Amino acid sequence: MTQNIYDTAEFFAGYSRLPRSVDGLAAAPEWPTLQSMLTDLQGRRVVDLGCGFGWFCRWAREAGAASVQGLDVSENMLARARETTSDSAIIYARADLERLDLAEGAFDLVYSSLALHYIENLRGLFERVHCGLAPGGRFVFSVEHPMYTAPAKPGWTHDHDGRLTWPVNRYSEEGARSTDWLAKGVIKQHRTLASYVNLLIESGFTLARLEEWSASATDVAAHPDWAGADERPSFLLMAAHR
Amino acid sequence: MTQNIYDTAEFFAGYSRLPRSVDGLAAAPEWPTLQSMLTDLQGRRVVDLGCGFGWFCRWAREAGAASVQGLDVSENMLARARETTSDSAIIYARADLERLDLAEGAFDLVYSSLALHYIENLRGLFERVHCGLAPGGRFVFSVEHPMYTAPAKPGWTHDHDGRLTWPVNRYSEEGARSTDWLAKGVIKQHRTLASYVNLLIESGFTLARLEEWSASATDVAAHPDWAGADERPSFLLMAAHR
Repeated sequence: MTQNIYDTAEFFAGYSRLPRSVDGLAAAPEWPTLQSMLTDLQGRRVVDLGCGFGWFCRWAREAGAASVQGLDVSENMLARARETTSDSAIIYARADLERLDLAEGAFDLVYSSLALHYIENLRGLFERVHCGLAPGGRFVFSVEHPMYTAPAKPGWTHDHDGRLTWPVNRYSEEGARSTDWLAKGVIKQHRTLASYVNLLIESGFTLARLEEWSASATDVAAHPDWAGADERPSFLLMAAHR
Repeated sequence: MTQNIYDTAEFFAGYSRLPRSVDGLAAAPEWPTLQSMLTDLQGRRVVDLGCGFGWFCRWAREAGAASVQGLDVSENMLARARETTSDSAIIYARADLERLDLAEGAFDLVYSSLALHYIENLRGLFERVHCGLAPGGRFVFSVEHPMYTAPAKPGWTHDHDGRLTWPVNRYSEEGARSTDWLAKGVIKQHRTLASYVNLLIESGFTLARLEEWSASATDVAAHPDWAGADERPSFLLMAAHR
């Protein structure tokens, strides 16, 4: 099973204080782009892989989804998600995404936000997602951008003109990266952008859209702690269909 | 018209001395990957956008193509290409890729190596390529990788452990970049990887494969002047079909 860092006290406490944990989708700067990659949810069957506190599940129901399953490996996250709704069309369940088991053709949308960069067997997951989608169904997900996960020693530096710059190395060397984000030794899986694309295609998907989310200069001016987020992409967003 | 740097004496002299100019495809380290993205050429009609000295055109004929058109904006390149063959099934012609005019459905393969990062109106070019391909036809091309073209001040630096690292900034800001490569003030067009993908899809293509070519550690050990080429991708290679 993938490291379940969300059920360690230190990480969970830190994660719970993030703006996107407190204020939900509205506090996730990449959400408008990700939202624009979804199709109409009216009457659709939706599953969210790595649902966290359930913000997207509740949004999907408000957008008209007929049913929503929220899957997560973290008991902490699921407990919090269950507290926030009494909607019987939203079902939360514990699942290890390394061994996901979706009923064949059971969903019209498989969604995942910032969870798949924890997965070791992404090819297996993509194949199971493809099988779980009805023909024409859509798979929309975000991950940390490969430029962000690649470096041996991630961290901003400056170029010769003093402009913030993100140093990239170790890009083609895929595999585990240990970072200290909210807790020490958080393990993420670095993959090249080519691997995300080719694994989707080899799993039978047709790629519909790809976005590399960067903050705008205006965003950065409004959020000084985002300095540099307009210089290189933070997130990779993809939409594909069966 | 795009800057025609290949017809300036200084650039052309430098370009003519590059290993890939002297020894052709065998000296282009990304060629085996690009070649693996082609389908069987037996009996196919091929056009090469930015054919240079015609190495690929001659290779395509040897691989069984029925006819090959080599298009280039540079008279210098075309003159050299014409000297190297007496094969009447290879036709070289001058063309500005900004205003490409391909007959509808006339080709089975549109190929381009390291030329499209000079093009301003890439959407227009992709649309004309799509129109020029027969149904099922393939578009295979390489460009300089967006990580390579992005930086305001490109150039290797070192991370805190002394490892070579490529500083990325200005990534989402698309448009002209002036570099001093073989001559001063060579203008290339930086585009995000997302733009290459989405422009293809919006032009009607189905993406078949994407590769980010990096040298291997073995390559770099054998070519000390390639130092760093195993740390981040140099080239973006794409295959799509109509």
